[in-house]
Amino acid sequence: MIDIQFRRAQASDLPVIVTLLADDPLGARREDTSLPLSQPYQAAFSAIDADPNQMLAVVIDREQVIGTLQLTFIPGISRRGAWRGQIEAVRIAREYRGTGIGTRMFEWAFEQCRARGCSLVQLTTDKERPEAHRFYEELGFTASHLGFKKAL
Amino acid sequence: MIDIQFRRAQASDLPVIVTLLADDPLGARREDTSLPLSQPYQAAFSAIDADPNQMLAVVIDREQVIGTLQLTFIPGISRRGAWRGQIEAVRIAREYRGTGIGTRMFEWAFEQCRARGCSLVQLTTDKERPEAHRFYEELGFTASHLGFKKAL
Repeated sequence: MIDIQFRRAQASDLPVIVTLLADDPLGARREDTSLPLSQPYQAAFSAIDADPNQMLAVVIDREQVIGTLQLTFIPGISRRGAWRGQIEAVRIAREYRGTGIGTRMFEWAFEQCRARGCSLVQLTTDKERPEAHRFYEELGFTASHLGFKKAL
Repeated sequence: MIDIQFRRAQASDLPVIVTLLADDPLGARREDTSLPLSQPYQAAFSAIDADPNQMLAVVIDREQVIGTLQLTFIPGISRRGAWRGQIEAVRIAREYRGTGIGTRMFEWAFEQCRARGCSLVQLTTDKERPEAHRFYEELGFTASHLGFKKAL
């Protein structure tokens, strides 16, 4: 098993995180990996880093960033005041895909959410990713909901 | 058209908000409307109220709370550092359903999200609510994603 570590992302990780986000058919159209990174990326990092209910994380193998995910801890009134952990922007470097690292990232994410008192974790994934659906079901998720999005 | 107002929820609105959340087949099983409200509800309200990226809102008609929704403003690296507005826990008092107030609540929510710089709004809804799906599509949402949830 590869000896990976997890830690909170630092500003210096941002170019690699954007590269990971862009290395995907959808992400390739959406991201701009040119350096220096454009100002909105820097501003987004600062906003995440300043928010105690956000955790942008990276996965490290031999001092290299090989994965990323973002957790949002959401307090809510419903379900008797339950906190939810929301998982977004999960990416693994191409050469590490299929090695079980995804499962370890989610197990780590669940631990972080439990430590923050969340009783539920949630995510949405594009309908066109059946292999992702199987992966999430194996992790114990139920596809009980539809995810609606709208550009503003 | 009913002359409704929107405002940020106050602690004194909490019992009505919980009653609205409970007035629903799913909510009835999940919530506890007994007074005084249990401590987790109070703690959740405080956590939401203290977080600048949360907005728990109420809809007012003639000084009465007749609806509620929660917005979460989520900074992210993906999509070139885009902010997202997430909408949860939307409820309208039974006697006001079917009057167009839902549409006005969403239009108000979109404005709040735009004012916070969000380029996207998102929500999930139970697969078993086809009438909600039509409503969201009429508002311009696309059901592009599946929503996965898992209890911790």
